[in-house]
Amino acid sequence: KDFSYSFATDSELLHAEVDVNRAYARMLAKVGLISRADARKIVKGLDAVELSWKPVTRSKYSALYEDIHSFIQGELEKRIGAVAKKIHTGRSRNDLVVTSTRVYLRAEIEAISEKIRETQRALVYLARKAKGMIIPGMTHLKKAQPVLLSHHLLAYVEMLQDDSDRLRNARARVNVLGLGSAALAGSALPLDQKFLARELGFERITSNSMAATSDRAFIAEVLSVLAMLWMHLSRLADDFILWNSEPFNFVELDDEFATGSSLMPQKKNPDIFELIRGRSGVIFGHLMSILTIQKGLSLCYNRDLQEDKPGLFDTIYKTHLALKLLPLTLRSVTFNPESMALSLLDDTLFATDIVEYLVRKGMAFSDAHETVGKVIRTSIESRKPLRALKLDVYKKFSNKFGPDIYKLFNAEASVRAKKTVGSTNPGRVGREMTKWERLLRKK
Amino acid sequence: KDFSYSFATDSELLHAEVDVNRAYARMLAKVGLISRADARKIVKGLDAVELSWKPVTRSKYSALYEDIHSFIQGELEKRIGAVAKKIHTGRSRNDLVVTSTRVYLRAEIEAISEKIRETQRALVYLARKAKGMIIPGMTHLKKAQPVLLSHHLLAYVEMLQDDSDRLRNARARVNVLGLGSAALAGSALPLDQKFLARELGFERITSNSMAATSDRAFIAEVLSVLAMLWMHLSRLADDFILWNSEPFNFVELDDEFATGSSLMPQKKNPDIFELIRGRSGVIFGHLMSILTIQKGLSLCYNRDLQEDKPGLFDTIYKTHLALKLLPLTLRSVTFNPESMALSLLDDTLFATDIVEYLVRKGMAFSDAHETVGKVIRTSIESRKPLRALKLDVYKKFSNKFGPDIYKLFNAEASVRAKKTVGSTNPGRVGREMTKWERLLRKK
Amino acid sequence: KDFSYSFATDSELLHAEVDVNRAYARMLAKVGLISRADARKIVKGLDAVELSWKPVTRSKYSALYEDIHSFIQGELEKRIGAVAKKIHTGRSRNDLVVTSTRVYLRAEIEAISEKIRETQRALVYLARKAKGMIIPGMTHLKKAQPVLLSHHLLAYVEMLQDDSDRLRNARARVNVLGLGSAALAGSALPLDQKFLARELGFERITSNSMAATSDRAFIAEVLSVLAMLWMHLSRLADDFILWNSEPFNFVELDDEFATGSSLMPQKKNPDIFELIRGRSGVIFGHLMSILTIQKGLSLCYNRDLQEDKPGLFDTIYKTHLALKLLPLTLRSVTFNPESMALSLLDDTLFATDIVEYLVRKGMAFSDAHETVGKVIRTSIESRKPLRALKLDVYKKFSNKFGPDIYKLFNAEASVRAKKTVGSTNPGRVGREMTKWERLLRKK
Amino acid sequence: KDFSYSFATDSELLHAEVDVNRAYARMLAKVGLISRADARKIVKGLDAVELSWKPVTRSKYSALYEDIHSFIQGELEKRIGAVAKKIHTGRSRNDLVVTSTRVYLRAEIEAISEKIRETQRALVYLARKAKGMIIPGMTHLKKAQPVLLSHHLLAYVEMLQDDSDRLRNARARVNVLGLGSAALAGSALPLDQKFLARELGFERITSNSMAATSDRAFIAEVLSVLAMLWMHLSRLADDFILWNSEPFNFVELDDEFATGSSLMPQKKNPDIFELIRGRSGVIFGHLMSILTIQKGLSLCYNRDLQEDKPGLFDTIYKTHLALKLLPLTLRSVTFNPESMALSLLDDTLFATDIVEYLVRKGMAFSDAHETVGKVIRTSIESRKPLRALKLDVYKKFSNKFGPDIYKLFNAEASVRAKKTVGSTNPGRVGREMTKWERLLRKK
Repeated sequence: KDFSYSFATDSELLHAEVDVNRAYARMLAKVGLISRADARKIVKGLDAVELSWKPVTRSKYSALYEDIHSFIQGELEKRIGAVAKKIHTGRSRNDLVVTSTRVYLRAEIEAISEKIRETQRALVYLARKAKGMIIPGMTHLKKAQPVLLSHHLLAYVEMLQDDSDRLRNARARVNVLGLGSAALAGSALPLDQKFLARELGFERITSNSMAATSDRAFIAEVLSVLAMLWMHLSRLADDFILWNSEPFNFVELDDEFATGSSLMPQKKNPDIFELIRGRSGVIFGHLMSILTIQKGLSLCYNRDLQEDKPGLFDTIYKTHLALKLLPLTLRSVTFNPESMALSLLDDTLFATDIVEYLVRKGMAFSDAHETVGKVIRTSIESRKPLRALKLDVYKKFSNKFGPDIYKLFNAEASVRAKKTVGSTNPGRVGREMTKWERLLRKK
Repeated sequence: KDFSYSFATDSELLHAEVDVNRAYARMLAKVGLISRADARKIVKGLDAVELSWKPVTRSKYSALYEDIHSFIQGELEKRIGAVAKKIHTGRSRNDLVVTSTRVYLRAEIEAISEKIRETQRALVYLARKAKGMIIPGMTHLKKAQPVLLSHHLLAYVEMLQDDSDRLRNARARVNVLGLGSAALAGSALPLDQKFLARELGFERITSNSMAATSDRAFIAEVLSVLAMLWMHLSRLADDFILWNSEPFNFVELDDEFATGSSLMPQKKNPDIFELIRGRSGVIFGHLMSILTIQKGLSLCYNRDLQEDKPGLFDTIYKTHLALKLLPLTLRSVTFNPESMALSLLDDTLFATDIVEYLVRKGMAFSDAHETVGKVIRTSIESRKPLRALKLDVYKKFSNKFGPDIYKLFNAEASVRAKKTVGSTNPGRVGREMTKWERLLRKK
Repeated sequence: KDFSYSFATDSELLHAEVDVNRAYARMLAKVGLISRADARKIVKGLDAVELSWKPVTRSKYSALYEDIHSFIQGELEKRIGAVAKKIHTGRSRNDLVVTSTRVYLRAEIEAISEKIRETQRALVYLARKAKGMIIPGMTHLKKAQPVLLSHHLLAYVEMLQDDSDRLRNARARVNVLGLGSAALAGSALPLDQKFLARELGFERITSNSMAATSDRAFIAEVLSVLAMLWMHLSRLADDFILWNSEPFNFVELDDEFATGSSLMPQKKNPDIFELIRGRSGVIFGHLMSILTIQKGLSLCYNRDLQEDKPGLFDTIYKTHLALKLLPLTLRSVTFNPESMALSLLDDTLFATDIVEYLVRKGMAFSDAHETVGKVIRTSIESRKPLRALKLDVYKKFSNKFGPDIYKLFNAEASVRAKKTVGSTNPGRVGREMTKWERLLRKK
Repeated sequence: KDFSYSFATDSELLHAEVDVNRAYARMLAKVGLISRADARKIVKGLDAVELSWKPVTRSKYSALYEDIHSFIQGELEKRIGAVAKKIHTGRSRNDLVVTSTRVYLRAEIEAISEKIRETQRALVYLARKAKGMIIPGMTHLKKAQPVLLSHHLLAYVEMLQDDSDRLRNARARVNVLGLGSAALAGSALPLDQKFLARELGFERITSNSMAATSDRAFIAEVLSVLAMLWMHLSRLADDFILWNSEPFNFVELDDEFATGSSLMPQKKNPDIFELIRGRSGVIFGHLMSILTIQKGLSLCYNRDLQEDKPGLFDTIYKTHLALKLLPLTLRSVTFNPESMALSLLDDTLFATDIVEYLVRKGMAFSDAHETVGKVIRTSIESRKPLRALKLDVYKKFSNKFGPDIYKLFNAEASVRAKKTVGSTNPGRVGREMTKWERLLRKK
């Protein structure tokens, strides 16, 4: 029983399955397969079962009922007697479970999409709060060029938007009615699938009963989108873990969202970010599972497919938790502009700016590149920062250098000089923030 | 060198990168960063490099050039001299490599989409060829109900269509221009990104240079879609492997697409299907890799990201091969209707039909279900098939049974009785075939 | 709280952690860091906490306590007051949690090893029951040569033995004491690690406190061994699913271990085998998770590592269930020798026997191979089975053929002729069964 | 052809398969199945084929030969004619390929084990070079306690030793002779497997021909061990990437092993470490593939198993490269003790030392813990480092504090105070280095 019973996990489906059952009872009455009175009894009974459900009762029933279907059925029979059995007219568990899963998943997609938006809002809020702050943008975890901290934060807003769009695309493939497929071949009874689709909000009715009862790619798709979301979250987490580390010290976490110790109250561990980073690995594993479970499975329904759910439910649960906590944590972050300023005290951060300066003065890019390389080598050999080299030293490398060269050693000037779409230019970044604030407005 | 050089694998990008370079040179001339004459020289040089490229030359150069960029650059310099260097004006490898990868991937998505269509065509062709053939639809690999073989084959057409739609959705997120992002912060030069987007067929320009140079979710998305495709292919393969196994013997493979031996010429091994089933595991592994590579990576570009390509190229390569071979293999399959007919000699295949017969005569579904269960138990105990039970035996269980009960023991009647949308009803399946033939018509 | 609390899952560690605590309290008294009286109080209190624990109380406490450590601590304080705090002298959660996990895992390895043996016993029992039964050994799911069913079953005994050996090897790396490492650097207090190791049955003490508190490869190793075990179980499951399918019909499942329906009582679905096959994918996913969680994590302890446990516990739990049910299911299987006999009615199964016959008569192997190929082609073209070809037909291909050729068309003769170590020869297989019965004897 | 041909990848097996063939020819002569003269001819021919092989010829032949077996066979026939065919006497591709793979893998295990030792030697060398250097040991990427840099480096020596031990354990399961199993059932010819085992260095002969030809768990085991190795390498890589990042600045990479740019010659990117970290994800993917390929595969040989090799070869290749480069890179690293010293200027690093000081003076651990927490809070509120608090301030919290308290604010004192086995105590760490130098001595 422990082995094959799935009630403990699939009780997540309760509300979805009760919805499906209510619509199904009405449909049966509409086409005359059961009486209107019976349908009313069934619907009322289902209402009662749903109302009486409390997650804590799950463990109480988990040894009694094999799965969520038998739980609903058993509880319904307790309440309305034998008429409860009529709900099964013309359907099988194979088309029922896939329909409940799709109703469930559609709702979760919507709820998670809203939570992604809330996370984006928190990032934009934080970007706004970081207005004007500049950090060394890093490649290979080495300082490369100055970037606006806001720009860095908005990068994640972009990535999350892609994830959101992916979820929306996946929804179209989730939102298909499979009822009417029965065990695998369809039904000879006059079931009204259009009515069911309308009642349950499905946009399409399956064109193939065998695909409908045995394909679980729609679950794999949602898990793969969430795996990409978690991949993005793990990167965001890693950035904050680094920024919270003393050698960086760019951010301070709020006590409420960090873990200290009675011994070292000042040490604020970024546990939430670490857990998010770690859990991304768990989600990737669930994606791998759902694909492997279906690999090489001949048609139609095989019991292997029952295993599609634990990983799905765990992913949905962990995603909700993470996206509930993350916006709050992000909004509570404070910045240390002094540490940022200190980290910009390295003139080689402006190497690219000098190259572009020479190009704008008419030098070919590759020559400019080579010239600046030589200047930097001189700076290193003479142990002087670039700004401390005299103009005549610069002139030795090229007479395009003028006194305005010293204006380049300034992080604000560096970001302001950027022109391209998508660049860290403050004007552009400001417009991006405004755009996102508008797009993410609560309706 | 062996460790960090990627030329051997990333030479797949050659044509894409040459395209990008040509457009970039024209753009630089347009905005005046290089002269029109230089741009012409560069474009002509690139044409020559592209023409001289042969995949076999790859191994020759793989120790000479670090990657495809340095190969193109080196070969271009050989041909046009120092002017070749001007192509780098205002860009970095970070925004270049991601742009070439996107151009490459967009083309591959289109080519694979067409191959999926060709596979769907072959399945519809085979479904048409199987017209009227009935096999026992199986659940739990046990015979359940008669289904049209065409219906079974069309189930895969449906699944592949979902994969095709997923690819189309992914394309929108692939088709974004990242050039202009430079190393990470954008450029101070007046690069014309709109011109580049138009020339290269990009629908969007990135809104964030940091996301553009360091996010590889677009690759993970394509790999996840292809993983789902391969999951479907592995199931199709398993069906044909079973059908080709002697105890089933539903299909015969063509000599050209099966492996025999000089010893046992009659034994046709379904190697192509086995390899497809096996390779699905390889593709899943590549998906896992691309996700894990990006996990916990702080922004921006890290060299870890170079590892995004070998798995991508291998997936694209294996997908092309499989989808080239599969349609040919499917079209060459012949059927053994006698084996199918033999496999239908089991009256319990019609149990559901008898239930539906009683329901149509007015019995409640659950009563019908129970009644038929009793009839079958009698049949088993008396060791007589259902059709051999006398009418008065049936009448003992319910007086709804009439002489028309014996018409049910007929696979054609069973599938004809099905009514629901998506069912195995021959009329519906016929219309599905026609629909698909129309949708899949070559343009 | 929901996000970072792990009590709901890590309560699996309760008994292990209580053991560790008892030994630790005694050690602290031994070295004089706490008094003997305090140690006695603590040990008695721990006994009481352990006794009062019931898995069902887990949900009651899961919102109260962050993890199993704080649960034990909190319950201990309730019982013995402030003295409970002394248990923490000189240790941290970092070295505690890893020690409890190792004690837990060592016990689970032993319990699972015994269950693997029980599964092997069931397979040997079944092999004994199948004595003399011959089935067509298959390659590419095509009939190849006759093999003893016992031989096929013993193949899994071999594979499981490898898994068992792997677990034993892994145990050596699990069984290392990490206490004394404190948070990461070791302790300045005079902790007696040798005493702890002896009390807790550890064979080694860690040589490096940083490795001890931050490496979780020992968990990954156990999960990888269990992944291989599940891979083997999934293959065993697939064999039984095939054999239970009507076209094969080699085995019959016991009602207790198969799922029928009230409608079709004769249809016994192999749900247990399907679930095992499906769950293998879940286990693979957990392995992927534990590796990915640790990827790229700088030393020492990071909270990411908390995520090592849910996948571990789920794997252990599912492995126990599967290995509890599988031996019972296997022992209940009955065979259909008639179906096996029918499936052997194909003379090409003896092609290899004829080749070997010719070689034994002095023909070169490759000539024999070619000759038999020709004979089979003649048999196919003349639509006569090999045994129906006249001797003079055989003589036309080679005069090595004699009247004893007809003795080869016999599955018993085929298996008896095999000579090599590891072959399906009945004598050898019989000795293998005896060997395994001896090796697997309960102590 | 492209689809099913495996020559391009499996040519890695050439030397192993030639070895197997030579031993096999001798065995056939020994038992009289071929003449001694033929055996000599075959062995000589094989020598010639092996000598003529150059990896570059691979691409030349990859369209001609299906796989490595047919290459060796074809080239052998070119040289010695029809007698070449006799090598196949009594065996099949199924037992041949698995034997060659095992011979190959055994050699690779040995070569990789030696490379792991070389990496350990480099780490011990570096630990020796770092003698006396102290860094802040980190948990949650927050400074926690002073540790010897040598101790940190030796942590990886420990982890790699576990990986090495795992490889050694795996070797025992790789080193089993499968020849004599033929296609699946064994052979009726008098093959001398003991002779083969002796010649080829196998310690065991398979006990079951069906397991021998269809189980690939031995490959999965090696890949799982290498996945754990790469997991460890990815963590080592991440540590060096952090230490090479400017905010840490603990190490400097040698120009030869870092990537600079002509523009910024001083910026040394840790590409090798980044590639190692990234590639760990690729290796995890290969492990997932080999498990998934075998999932649910009924016995015996299925062509799916051909897919076991590309991932294996790629893993072996990448592991060799990484372990060749890593020791050289590590040995070239130089340290910046000034940066380390600066990073220790934080008195809260000594919090644990103060607790242990109080415990040694007789205070209960939990009281000491609480007391120190209060002292630190005072230090923070008064914005004075701990060492700047007057003794009478300390006395207010406990009269156990004496003037020796100020000796604690010293990283050397902190590590010296550690006593436990495995701790960062310099004496212990020194003995560990000596132990490892002895254990890793080249033979």
